Amino acid sequence: MANHTLEGNRLEAIPRQPVSHRALIGAVEGTLADFLAVQIASLDTVDPALGGFARTARDLVMAGGKRIRPTFAYWGWRGVVGSAEPVEGVLPALGALELMHTFALVHDDLMDRSATRRGRPTAHRLFAAQHGEQFGDSAAILVGDLCLVWADQLLARTTLPPATLLDVRTRYDRMRVEAVAGQYLDVLGETDPANWSVERALLVARHKTASYTVQWPLGFGLALASSGGDPALEEAYRIYGLAVGEAFQLRDDLLGVYGDPAVTGKPAGDDLRTGKPTTLLMLARRMASSAQLDELAVADVTRQAEIITATGAPAQVEEMIRSRVDEGVAAIAGAPVRPDARAALIELATAVTHRPA
Amino acid sequence: MANHTLEGNRLEAIPRQPVSHRALIGAVEGTLADFLAVQIASLDTVDPALGGFARTARDLVMAGGKRIRPTFAYWGWRGVVGSAEPVEGVLPALGALELMHTFALVHDDLMDRSATRRGRPTAHRLFAAQHGEQFGDSAAILVGDLCLVWADQLLARTTLPPATLLDVRTRYDRMRVEAVAGQYLDVLGETDPANWSVERALLVARHKTASYTVQWPLGFGLALASSGGDPALEEAYRIYGLAVGEAFQLRDDLLGVYGDPAVTGKPAGDDLRTGKPTTLLMLARRMASSAQLDELAVADVTRQAEIITATGAPAQVEEMIRSRVDEGVAAIAGAPVRPDARAALIELATAVTHRPA
Repeated sequence: MANHTLEGNRLEAIPRQPVSHRALIGAVEGTLADFLAVQIASLDTVDPALGGFARTARDLVMAGGKRIRPTFAYWGWRGVVGSAEPVEGVLPALGALELMHTFALVHDDLMDRSATRRGRPTAHRLFAAQHGEQFGDSAAILVGDLCLVWADQLLARTTLPPATLLDVRTRYDRMRVEAVAGQYLDVLGETDPANWSVERALLVARHKTASYTVQWPLGFGLALASSGGDPALEEAYRIYGLAVGEAFQLRDDLLGVYGDPAVTGKPAGDDLRTGKPTTLLMLARRMASSAQLDELAVADVTRQAEIITATGAPAQVEEMIRSRVDEGVAAIAGAPVRPDARAALIELATAVTHRPA
Repeated sequence: MANHTLEGNRLEAIPRQPVSHRALIGAVEGTLADFLAVQIASLDTVDPALGGFARTARDLVMAGGKRIRPTFAYWGWRGVVGSAEPVEGVLPALGALELMHTFALVHDDLMDRSATRRGRPTAHRLFAAQHGEQFGDSAAILVGDLCLVWADQLLARTTLPPATLLDVRTRYDRMRVEAVAGQYLDVLGETDPANWSVERALLVARHKTASYTVQWPLGFGLALASSGGDPALEEAYRIYGLAVGEAFQLRDDLLGVYGDPAVTGKPAGDDLRTGKPTTLLMLARRMASSAQLDELAVADVTRQAEIITATGAPAQVEEMIRSRVDEGVAAIAGAPVRPDARAALIELATAVTHRPA
């Protein structure tokens, strides 16, 4: 099993039973590495250029990241099945979520024209360095497409009865539609931030991030455990998923303005530069004095960050994060879920919403 | 069932038993229209902007086209099952191929920066007209992604035993990897056409078009009929699919230079403008005198087309089409396939390789 870097991963405070967080991530990454090696070899035989293309895709998948979606899916599954049940059979499904996430990141970075991700050049920049910008854009679209198809192929290797796997796929498809729809609203918001609102920003957070990062991975994990699942647990996962997921996005909004590029792997003030109408920015606009509003429109990103702080919006976003974490914790505390998963999800609610990157 | 336009469709010369070509296409388009109406309504409830986004996707799917992939999949299936077997259960799978094709067209048109498709503005141009070029590019990526996910959702509605559906999906996934890989080679070729070759152009034709347009749809249809399938028929479909599929791409190469824009729906000389290293162009380079070669490098697209004709390359491509059609027909003529499908596939071999668009 490959030994991939876990530096910067701050989700260590997870109960060590039945599997440590590090061991889980290692197992998911090992599954990915094994799968990708086979795909690369197969494409290499068609044309060496395709092998190179596939290797770039692999490097993007294996470049680290917090592996949050497989983690939530794992605990969504473990919330139902006993700790004696081996994880091996569902590892392909957990890895598939990460491949799908690479697809989303590669396409998002292209749309945002972001230069770096996880401290490395983004896909379109890597390819542009080979044959120019138009090739870079095209190859990034294709490398994202490839990861999305690979995700389906890896998902198909999950050891489950066919009917259960079809149920898992139904949820997976709905998750993907929500992720695409949320990203469309995100892109649309950037074209006209002046007409955006706190409410619409929260709608984007719910559809782009919350459902895709927490809610659906938990439900996906539940489906891996059985075709049905306890409706009360399903509902608890839903409430927890949306609350913690929104809090995750609100933290992301704060990191997008105040995050340390050395830790986030993205340029400072990236959201301000692209004019992304985040909840934070929409709140700041609503809370700003007219003098602050005028200055916001013309200031550079460093000064914009100072003005946003002065409006009090970051403190309010912190409060929104806190109340959502509380809501998520309460939902899971009272749910019919196995104790080890309850403890892990309660800790994760705080870990993923108080992170440095 | 919706009554969609079929103008420009020249594949009428298909045996009328057990279903006319027009009726088959109507049934596939009706399945698509019904499915898309539900998806649009669902996204509309989240945000009206998402409804608009989904309606644009629907219009791209329903804008016509030859529906070649569902046609081959239908006959691949009908080659195994009796003519009394109703087609309804497999219509979602046939429609899924068309949704997947819309994904490929939308992303390809963006990469090629094509302005029109099927006589209408391409997706990125439609969206650019709303909010500018960067928004247009982003929304086109997303509308393609959405169609790809919708394809999976529609495929899941096929009435088949779960194990059979998983087998269908395995083939579908391999088809998609080949389509993405072929497109990558296509894009790569455009960055350096001077170092491309006839052999590599044929490799692209095989992987980008032949496998994805004919070979895999036939195999996909075979899998819809049963989990196994006669190995001799599978092999006949493979030979036919690659031969007729390559011939299809070679016809496309000719249409890309000599096609009538009013019929093809694309600008004249589009391939020459983008510098696509097609088999036709690579052959022309190989057959050209050094004077012709020098002029090719600097001539406008009208003159380039004349020079290519003068090299004799188009006549040789016609001969390549003819020999491939013969090979495909021979394979299917001797295959253990039901007579109605044999007759249809023999006619299709000529129809799809001698088309005006």
